[in-house]
Amino acid sequence: MSGKIRVGVLGATGMVGQRFIQLMDGHPYFEVVAVGASPRSAGKTYAEAVAGAWKMTTPIPAAVAAMIVATCDAAHFVDCRLIFSGLDASVAGAIETAHAAAGRYVISNSKNHRRDPLVPLVVPTVNAAHLAVVAQQQQRRATPGWIVTNANCSTTAMVVPLKALQAAFGPLRRVMVTTLQAISGGGYPGVPSMDILGNVVPYISGEEEKIEWETGKILGGVETAAAAAGDDGDASAFVHDPVRVSATCTRVPVVDGHTCCVSVEFACDTPPSLAAVAQAFRDYRFDGQDLALPTKPQHAIVVTDDPARPQPRLDVDAGNGQSVTVGRIRECSLFHVKFVALCHNTILGAAGSSLLNAEIMKERGLLGRA
Amino acid sequence: MSGKIRVGVLGATGMVGQRFIQLMDGHPYFEVVAVGASPRSAGKTYAEAVAGAWKMTTPIPAAVAAMIVATCDAAHFVDCRLIFSGLDASVAGAIETAHAAAGRYVISNSKNHRRDPLVPLVVPTVNAAHLAVVAQQQQRRATPGWIVTNANCSTTAMVVPLKALQAAFGPLRRVMVTTLQAISGGGYPGVPSMDILGNVVPYISGEEEKIEWETGKILGGVETAAAAAGDDGDASAFVHDPVRVSATCTRVPVVDGHTCCVSVEFACDTPPSLAAVAQAFRDYRFDGQDLALPTKPQHAIVVTDDPARPQPRLDVDAGNGQSVTVGRIRECSLFHVKFVALCHNTILGAAGSSLLNAEIMKERGLLGRA
Amino acid sequence: MSGKIRVGVLGATGMVGQRFIQLMDGHPYFEVVAVGASPRSAGKTYAEAVAGAWKMTTPIPAAVAAMIVATCDAAHFVDCRLIFSGLDASVAGAIETAHAAAGRYVISNSKNHRRDPLVPLVVPTVNAAHLAVVAQQQQRRATPGWIVTNANCSTTAMVVPLKALQAAFGPLRRVMVTTLQAISGGGYPGVPSMDILGNVVPYISGEEEKIEWETGKILGGVETAAAAAGDDGDASAFVHDPVRVSATCTRVPVVDGHTCCVSVEFACDTPPSLAAVAQAFRDYRFDGQDLALPTKPQHAIVVTDDPARPQPRLDVDAGNGQSVTVGRIRECSLFHVKFVALCHNTILGAAGSSLLNAEIMKERGLLGRA
Amino acid sequence: MSGKIRVGVLGATGMVGQRFIQLMDGHPYFEVVAVGASPRSAGKTYAEAVAGAWKMTTPIPAAVAAMIVATCDAAHFVDCRLIFSGLDASVAGAIETAHAAAGRYVISNSKNHRRDPLVPLVVPTVNAAHLAVVAQQQQRRATPGWIVTNANCSTTAMVVPLKALQAAFGPLRRVMVTTLQAISGGGYPGVPSMDILGNVVPYISGEEEKIEWETGKILGGVETAAAAAGDDGDASAFVHDPVRVSATCTRVPVVDGHTCCVSVEFACDTPPSLAAVAQAFRDYRFDGQDLALPTKPQHAIVVTDDPARPQPRLDVDAGNGQSVTVGRIRECSLFHVKFVALCHNTILGAAGSSLLNAEIMKERGLLGRA
Repeated sequence: MSGKIRVGVLGATGMVGQRFIQLMDGHPYFEVVAVGASPRSAGKTYAEAVAGAWKMTTPIPAAVAAMIVATCDAAHFVDCRLIFSGLDASVAGAIETAHAAAGRYVISNSKNHRRDPLVPLVVPTVNAAHLAVVAQQQQRRATPGWIVTNANCSTTAMVVPLKALQAAFGPLRRVMVTTLQAISGGGYPGVPSMDILGNVVPYISGEEEKIEWETGKILGGVETAAAAAGDDGDASAFVHDPVRVSATCTRVPVVDGHTCCVSVEFACDTPPSLAAVAQAFRDYRFDGQDLALPTKPQHAIVVTDDPARPQPRLDVDAGNGQSVTVGRIRECSLFHVKFVALCHNTILGAAGSSLLNAEIMKERGLLGRA
Repeated sequence: MSGKIRVGVLGATGMVGQRFIQLMDGHPYFEVVAVGASPRSAGKTYAEAVAGAWKMTTPIPAAVAAMIVATCDAAHFVDCRLIFSGLDASVAGAIETAHAAAGRYVISNSKNHRRDPLVPLVVPTVNAAHLAVVAQQQQRRATPGWIVTNANCSTTAMVVPLKALQAAFGPLRRVMVTTLQAISGGGYPGVPSMDILGNVVPYISGEEEKIEWETGKILGGVETAAAAAGDDGDASAFVHDPVRVSATCTRVPVVDGHTCCVSVEFACDTPPSLAAVAQAFRDYRFDGQDLALPTKPQHAIVVTDDPARPQPRLDVDAGNGQSVTVGRIRECSLFHVKFVALCHNTILGAAGSSLLNAEIMKERGLLGRA
Repeated sequence: MSGKIRVGVLGATGMVGQRFIQLMDGHPYFEVVAVGASPRSAGKTYAEAVAGAWKMTTPIPAAVAAMIVATCDAAHFVDCRLIFSGLDASVAGAIETAHAAAGRYVISNSKNHRRDPLVPLVVPTVNAAHLAVVAQQQQRRATPGWIVTNANCSTTAMVVPLKALQAAFGPLRRVMVTTLQAISGGGYPGVPSMDILGNVVPYISGEEEKIEWETGKILGGVETAAAAAGDDGDASAFVHDPVRVSATCTRVPVVDGHTCCVSVEFACDTPPSLAAVAQAFRDYRFDGQDLALPTKPQHAIVVTDDPARPQPRLDVDAGNGQSVTVGRIRECSLFHVKFVALCHNTILGAAGSSLLNAEIMKERGLLGRA
Repeated sequence: MSGKIRVGVLGATGMVGQRFIQLMDGHPYFEVVAVGASPRSAGKTYAEAVAGAWKMTTPIPAAVAAMIVATCDAAHFVDCRLIFSGLDASVAGAIETAHAAAGRYVISNSKNHRRDPLVPLVVPTVNAAHLAVVAQQQQRRATPGWIVTNANCSTTAMVVPLKALQAAFGPLRRVMVTTLQAISGGGYPGVPSMDILGNVVPYISGEEEKIEWETGKILGGVETAAAAAGDDGDASAFVHDPVRVSATCTRVPVVDGHTCCVSVEFACDTPPSLAAVAQAFRDYRFDGQDLALPTKPQHAIVVTDDPARPQPRLDVDAGNGQSVTVGRIRECSLFHVKFVALCHNTILGAAGSSLLNAEIMKERGLLGRA
């Protein structure tokens, strides 16, 4: 017995699933003991199931390689306390609900439950306080397990610096953002090379709506449990921030790393100086910063002074992929301040957020006894 | 004698110069008779001077290949009535001034004279009426020749659809734009592959300032010659449009084609519907549309209904590189309307603008007797 | 009535099918009157069927855009005399056979019938004499129609210069080749961007076997019909050349253009000089060169003296995609001569070969009365 | 005092120099104490000198960032016992000679001294025994220091598996190789993006000659010192292997990782089976394998069974960049066996070889007292 928390990974053969498995290799808290995928993969060893499709740059961890892949039926995961879901949105909703109903703690990268008024939508370096809502979720939904989600990858890159600004200077009024997103966000086989090689595709289905909606929930607050409990079961535990966001999302020929070009208007009348903004980014500390967490970045935000950075190739692995790098802080002639933010879209923007959320919950006693 | 206007090309070995030479191959109005470049190239044949550096996908026109390259000294171009300049900004200013002083008509792609209050800054499918200011320029500056400039490549992609909106719906108040620009805009050798392969560089020196400034001059009007003549020699012949622009410029791994993600706020209180905006783009006719011009695009704006276009690879050659393709017309939650515009940055965005400007001037009698 | 030969395109929505349709737009001999694709597309207009998947850089020809797509059942193509097939190999065999049995002349880009001993395998600028075998095929197989194939795209790039060497210097003994192949050869969606962006995949299923086998048939001769007719119906009409080929095929992040690095050993004892080899490439004339053909390249082989060419980006469109560009002619320390050859893999390497074969057959009276 | 060997890096601002500095960060044997570059950089801090041009994906080590860059004059490196040179070949020869004359131990990645008959040309996982020749070099050249070189990056990828074959099956007769090389091998700014984005350049100046020549020296033996000492000072200490190599070198749009497509003919009459070849690769142990060395890969050769690998993106970091990955082992229809080999061109193919050579020499007492 390793004494670690036993973990199952759903959608284990996909890009996000592979990243979960890679990041948990040798993890001090968590141990992958079950892997779920589509019926096509079920019954094969994990190595067989991902043959030719393992796209991480490190080998498949040996213990996982030899595991027999199951379908994602909750019955196959009774040994697991925690479930990481990298399922495709076309199937994630019902499967994750079933796992929570079966008493599993589900931490999902899928979009399906993000808008659920009792499901935390958490970027770990932004709004970890929302994670405590799982208690309300269990109580008001009367389920033994729960579901936590993390944000869309492009939302993630932007919302970390927005949180730092909100924390330092108060509410934001308006945010205009254009994203330049990496192909790994499209999964595998995902984006055809004929579409993106030497090209830009100025559209990603559903992406702009996600950024525009999710930002408000993530930057918002939490209702006190008492007050919320007085409501019916669907009353929201979350108070959305009124910031208004307009997004344009594009795909560019980059493997990993979403770049966000952001312009921000503060709600206050006298906006902070550029120097104050830069300092706020540098000084930003997130709720959970003081915890000793295995994949916690030293800095949630890394500020670069190089006028031509952040760049995906050079900066995507900052903080082992859990930091957001911010640069080009300058005045906006229409709003107040412009900057460029970059995050690793399959680490902090996906599996890494799930994992860091789990680590925070473990340290805060939200994953039960070890 | 061909009866064509004799043309010299300055900066003939660079990317823009090569494009000038390619576009003028077989041109019915113009004939390249002299090519100028740096002293390093002078004395060689053009073919020798560009050996290994000819980056067009068609062969060097035979007549030009055999020409002896001169330096850009105006004395070498006395046979030319018209000069196309693709010079680097580090040297373009004084050289172009000297050519105008020597009686040449100079049509330049360089930035140096764009802010001159008597030099037209013209995108041919936007503000060809400005070209007539060359008469004022000659008179008030007392030079036998004149200088005309075209816009920065990224400005060009955006300003064509902005003009269509302005023409249809009146003044624009604010424009936020993020560009994704091609490497050919950086010249040759230009952008190192180590910087851009699989990467994004969120900065192009001076580019944002150009877009923010040039848009107002291009969308603005012309003073009547009489009124302006009453002013001293430096009074502007141009009335800048008050539209305010905020730009973020990025470089992406695309060979040709600048993509602009644009959000527009109209000055009027009741903005047009999306359908009206789309129709305005489709119906847009520019000043000069009725002329029979060799490189005139059938449509200054091509509207695409494909939700994932315009794309550089598929749309860059629309109108033989002289059209702007516009798509993704949709509401902006902060301003009024958002869209994506694409132009060929070395054709309409550079040499093609110069050439089409020259064609318009020829048809309007501004190039003297043929 | 246009007086043109009525043509059907099978696999019309795929990459090769799209290229057929593009190349036949405005063609003086041929007119597309029917388009076939999978049952999923049948019943839609062609424009609907390829919505979002039209990957040519010119618009869909209007007449074809409005056609209703049929399945590939031969019954839907009774109006056609000629069929161009861009079908996937998984279905091409039986469908093409059925069309020939129904009296159609089938010119196919698929691999299925290439090894048939009565089916010509023809690169139009190499072995057009083989096309006459269709008469034997009809007679000995007792079918009213016939089938002609063209070569695999990577074979094509190499076999044109090999033919020039064979014609000038006699038999070749051994050829070692490494190919660097473009993504468009993989169809659409085809090669996932996660596999090829900034990467090399040193394997293309079945490709090396095709090059090694097809070269011998293409460079070989034709049995006289009389002798062959004395054989049973499966005796080959073709005498394979004994050249031995060893191939390594790789995929590289290039959109169009296969590059072949070739080393050749002649069968003769005293190999030709490099100058003689270069001259043989320049002087090469193919069987059919004298015909006036709409898509015939001026030169089957374009020789470049630039030490760093041929390059896909610069040379792929030589001869409107129907030429092979050859460069880097130099000694091999193991064999006799090395060179690099490049062809457009979806024009001469696919649809363009089919079309040029058809043009030759039309001029030689092999397509029946016009 | 750290007790580490004091090291200077020449060409410290270039790509190879940056890699040296990155790889030595925290190294247990070596400590960078001086950095040399061109006069343009001299006098600046290292961080200033590489501003905007640091292309590693990890930050500049703090201690080096603050160092003042000197010119490469030997007088500035008197504190150093060991010199790593990443100098450009245009200046490396004389500078390295001067450092050796001044008593430094010089380990160079440059080509200049590779053909010197007394200078070891060593791939650490191939022919570390050659390193001992430095004693002869000092004695016969009467210099207090010495020079050691490592191989060209493309030679390196190929020669490691060739050595394994030679060790297992005896001499090789002929090797045909085509390389697909990464852009980082061209330095910075190096390969222009206009040349390589979506393109292949089938030529790298001087590269084919290097592979064809270096392989023989690396796979060859060492004269006994006694015999060699009897010769005059220029007699070679090395006995070249008679293997004959023919190379074609191409550049592809890959950031890091050279891919070699290799065909081998053994000298013996009965070549080994493919299974035996694969096993020989797996079992290969190099001279130095038993030493505990900081950057030694666990396996000099990693064999992959995936038919589509090795691939640069997935395999370049095998063994932290010090392993060669080999795959696609199959029969050659002309020679005996074909395979594909991949190495990290700026780690094992450049700075990593230098460093591992230095580690071996340190353990073997060839770097003097610590």
